[in-house]
Amino acid sequence: MKRIYLDHAATTPLCKEAFCAVTDCLSGCFGNPDSVHSFGREAEKVLRGARDRVAELMGADPSEIVFTSGGTEADNAALKGVAAAAGKRRHILISAVEHPAVYAAAEQLREAGFSVGVIPADGEGFVTPEALLGAIREDTLLVSVMWANNVFGTLEDIPELARAAHSAGALFHTDAVQAAGALEVDAGASGADLISVSAHKMYGPKGAGALYVRRGTPFLPLIAGGEQERGLRGGTSAVHSAAGFAAAFAATRGSAAEDAARMRELRDFFLGELLSEDGVTLVGASDMSRRHPGNACVRVEGVRAGQLLAALDLEGVAASAGSACSARLALPDRSLTALGLTETQADECVRFSLGRETQKEELVRAAEIFRAAVRRIRKA
Amino acid sequence: MKRIYLDHAATTPLCKEAFCAVTDCLSGCFGNPDSVHSFGREAEKVLRGARDRVAELMGADPSEIVFTSGGTEADNAALKGVAAAAGKRRHILISAVEHPAVYAAAEQLREAGFSVGVIPADGEGFVTPEALLGAIREDTLLVSVMWANNVFGTLEDIPELARAAHSAGALFHTDAVQAAGALEVDAGASGADLISVSAHKMYGPKGAGALYVRRGTPFLPLIAGGEQERGLRGGTSAVHSAAGFAAAFAATRGSAAEDAARMRELRDFFLGELLSEDGVTLVGASDMSRRHPGNACVRVEGVRAGQLLAALDLEGVAASAGSACSARLALPDRSLTALGLTETQADECVRFSLGRETQKEELVRAAEIFRAAVRRIRKA
Repeated sequence: MKRIYLDHAATTPLCKEAFCAVTDCLSGCFGNPDSVHSFGREAEKVLRGARDRVAELMGADPSEIVFTSGGTEADNAALKGVAAAAGKRRHILISAVEHPAVYAAAEQLREAGFSVGVIPADGEGFVTPEALLGAIREDTLLVSVMWANNVFGTLEDIPELARAAHSAGALFHTDAVQAAGALEVDAGASGADLISVSAHKMYGPKGAGALYVRRGTPFLPLIAGGEQERGLRGGTSAVHSAAGFAAAFAATRGSAAEDAARMRELRDFFLGELLSEDGVTLVGASDMSRRHPGNACVRVEGVRAGQLLAALDLEGVAASAGSACSARLALPDRSLTALGLTETQADECVRFSLGRETQKEELVRAAEIFRAAVRRIRKA
Repeated sequence: MKRIYLDHAATTPLCKEAFCAVTDCLSGCFGNPDSVHSFGREAEKVLRGARDRVAELMGADPSEIVFTSGGTEADNAALKGVAAAAGKRRHILISAVEHPAVYAAAEQLREAGFSVGVIPADGEGFVTPEALLGAIREDTLLVSVMWANNVFGTLEDIPELARAAHSAGALFHTDAVQAAGALEVDAGASGADLISVSAHKMYGPKGAGALYVRRGTPFLPLIAGGEQERGLRGGTSAVHSAAGFAAAFAATRGSAAEDAARMRELRDFFLGELLSEDGVTLVGASDMSRRHPGNACVRVEGVRAGQLLAALDLEGVAASAGSACSARLALPDRSLTALGLTETQADECVRFSLGRETQKEELVRAAEIFRAAVRRIRKA
């Protein structure tokens, strides 16, 4: 059975550029980049090259890139790193549609004595500057709003939101883990002070990512230790991971415009197929230009997502019900109920996420399998 | 010029078993192990296999292994994870000869309101149970003592120290990053509640490690997010890194006894060569059986380490002055002054660390280069 992978928001296949960069480094350069001898300098050169490349792709200075073990670490570092450096401001504001990493980090800060507020989203998952300003306080330290939602693909207006946060004197963080693979994530244009990105969502290796920290942002390391990453993240740098991340990022950005245009077309076709079935409705942004190009999230009335996903999986179609991070919890993703869906309705949502290698014939076949499965389950 | 690598305490070359495990996984299995479809299950199977293997090699249950991005994260997670779950006990005790990761994590906890004490070490770097009991308090939450010192190789008596900590009702953590590659690190026999290990110190990939957390130990995640690692460490697991780590660990342990015996013999020969030079003295344990098999740390009177290391590097010999983590600070390693050395004396210490691939002829040549460099610098 030829399988059809439509879960690119969970992770993406490794591209050949990243594979080569990782294996080249693993086989050719084993030094510790912090060692001052020739083995160390060789590794440091590879690491510096990766940092320069990632910085350029994000419109940042290399000194503003902190390599991390992935998006979740980057999110935790952003929230806790700013909190640890906080003065009198003790209020953290996150949106209602954040990834579990941001939500869980904020919960830990609440336990540690910070107060945490939530900015509501509208029924399509949009967080407006007005909603942000309605929730902000004089003592708000940091506002965190996701760039592209991982479940239903809604794209937030990050520059507007960053401006609103700044108008109240707060810092602004965005989890751009889903966005960075498909869209341009430019630090300067975004206005954000901190931006999380992850390699394995853009055809790079797992266990690699970065946190952009705008110069001058008060920040303390989540992982303390050596002087790596200019003192902002201790631990021996995983040079091969950084190299693979940079290679994947460059390759992804190199064809991003064409890939996004192609994915949008395929996604629109696929969504059309899904929505033509009775009782199937769109979840997230209805304006397709304000939606992640690969995201097709729908609610299938009367059909529990778990049952549908199992049926799809049996036919070789890989999709999901929300973030893989919470897939093993028997609960619907929190960001779905934030849209106003009841728990039962949220539990009827499935997410298909296309990638740049997705083919139309795969979508034709996946739509057929989807329809047949929905009908079978509804009859049973 | 054929270079001679004698900095295995900083990092080790990747072994072929680890290279194959990493590349097999990168090319054959890209799923997110938390996804519930077939791609996810394939990845989860690889991850489970790696976890089972690491657990077995540490004499632990798989549920007690938390994969991390390396030793520094493991150390930070150990101290901060226990601190975050703390009740009334607010005192943390670390030894005077800890790695910067433990030291820096403890400093952050001090900033956060914990009180932090330091257990003194003797002139050879030994931390005795008596010293531990002299520093412990009724409210001591956690004691952290390194298994094998990274700079001068002294091996602590971990079971005795763990017993002493437990006798006062405190938890016990050991940073076994240097020990685990060369010696048996058995969780049960050690008595430790938390043990940090790192892959790249045992011929595995950088960016991989584990924290052993004994079942029942109160612990909260450093990196919060999804339900990965049984809720103890969020973020998509770097499956290929875990696979490479497990493969390297297994290969290292498979020949550990012979490797250690061979390294001890070579190390003793090499130390003999170094110490035959005037004004060169041993640093760390004088009982060679209580020293890391690959460690040869010496003080060269009247010669600054930085100058000597640069001279060695020019001749292709890679050594160091302390942890690579602090190599770029122009200060001697803190654990050296803890031995009673003055700053000037500490700044005269160099560390050679042998690996399992080190050859006698390399050491003969390195000793010649060392002697010539020392004489040249002293004359200048």
